[in-house]
Amino acid sequence: MASGTEEGSSMKIGIIGAGNMGGCLGKLWSQAGHQIMFSFTQDPKALEEAAVSAGGRTGTVIDAAQFGDVVLVAVPWAAIDIALKDVASVLAGKVVISCNNPLKPDLSGLLLGTETSGAEEVARLLPAARVVEVLFPFAHQLRSGELRFDGQQPSQFYCGDDVQAKRAVATLIGELGLDPVDAGPLTSARFLEPFGMLMVQLAYRQGFGVNIGTQLLRR
Amino acid sequence: MASGTEEGSSMKIGIIGAGNMGGCLGKLWSQAGHQIMFSFTQDPKALEEAAVSAGGRTGTVIDAAQFGDVVLVAVPWAAIDIALKDVASVLAGKVVISCNNPLKPDLSGLLLGTETSGAEEVARLLPAARVVEVLFPFAHQLRSGELRFDGQQPSQFYCGDDVQAKRAVATLIGELGLDPVDAGPLTSARFLEPFGMLMVQLAYRQGFGVNIGTQLLRR
Repeated sequence: MASGTEEGSSMKIGIIGAGNMGGCLGKLWSQAGHQIMFSFTQDPKALEEAAVSAGGRTGTVIDAAQFGDVVLVAVPWAAIDIALKDVASVLAGKVVISCNNPLKPDLSGLLLGTETSGAEEVARLLPAARVVEVLFPFAHQLRSGELRFDGQQPSQFYCGDDVQAKRAVATLIGELGLDPVDAGPLTSARFLEPFGMLMVQLAYRQGFGVNIGTQLLRR
Repeated sequence: MASGTEEGSSMKIGIIGAGNMGGCLGKLWSQAGHQIMFSFTQDPKALEEAAVSAGGRTGTVIDAAQFGDVVLVAVPWAAIDIALKDVASVLAGKVVISCNNPLKPDLSGLLLGTETSGAEEVARLLPAARVVEVLFPFAHQLRSGELRFDGQQPSQFYCGDDVQAKRAVATLIGELGLDPVDAGPLTSARFLEPFGMLMVQLAYRQGFGVNIGTQLLRR
């Protein structure tokens, strides 16, 4: 693991996909003291805005992949192949946070079933990277900075196969104010992605709106 | 809807599958004032014990299906065809609570993907029943009667296509002390089942144990 992913230290974070999700996370992690490079958006203006807002820089996908000790991939599922086509070798050995639920465009379900998952597909595209899946709260919440609910701390599941990579990611999750919960190996994405889909269903079809979260209760 | 499924009234509840799950739920609903009939277990002694413990009665699967205003189906997935083979016509129009996550026997995943779900398979086997999926907390918790966590109330997702059936089931969930959350149509089982699988993963493979629950946070 690069020294930059040690707990508590400042990390360089490359972001592939500077949309709602990547933009918000980059800003929050910037405020936590990390250096951010944004890349890959359909709207170059959005890229610049994200960088200005976060005090970060911009670059190509390859630049961001090279820059980051940790690289967040948060792109629309339809763009995943294009987003990652040139960076498999650059990302070899790096911590990659996969925040890509393979939702159908109409949000009616998932494109991939429980025999595989979006995260596993990402790992296939990046065979030497250390992929950790984290499906973060709705961008609206990340944007508002209000991640707690009346003082209650939402849980944030993550999964992956590399212990050190997961430790680094857990730190990043904690820095958002969320409670990191290790959901096991990367194949757990087969369960985390439908769970993410459930949140989508509740928010957009069941009338709860995007101000929802979940807390793992323990005793 | 039969008058017996009106909110607040005493219901007749038939239980197909008097194992950990069915036994515990039968007892709790009996304590809430409902009449219970247990059926279908590999161990006839367990069937009698469940009935004695709950103050309920026992019968064949057909008896339980006829008896219930509401029928809970909670059997190992491998037994689902056998359990339901003779009751499709009896259950026509009845509220059926499907509590069957199609887990692989080694708990490593789900047997069915997001193109379908256990609940939809149940609905196919019972084409005229009003199926609602509810994947309840671990039987251990139901058994202990301790469903709250330091005063916090777990959420209980459910899904189905029949509004009245869902209303009745929501009442039954509330009577357990859980907060019922409508997760949408029966196809949402494609998301609830992996979510249930996630809880299984956390409990048995990630070291959390079965004393876990989830709460939907809202604002």
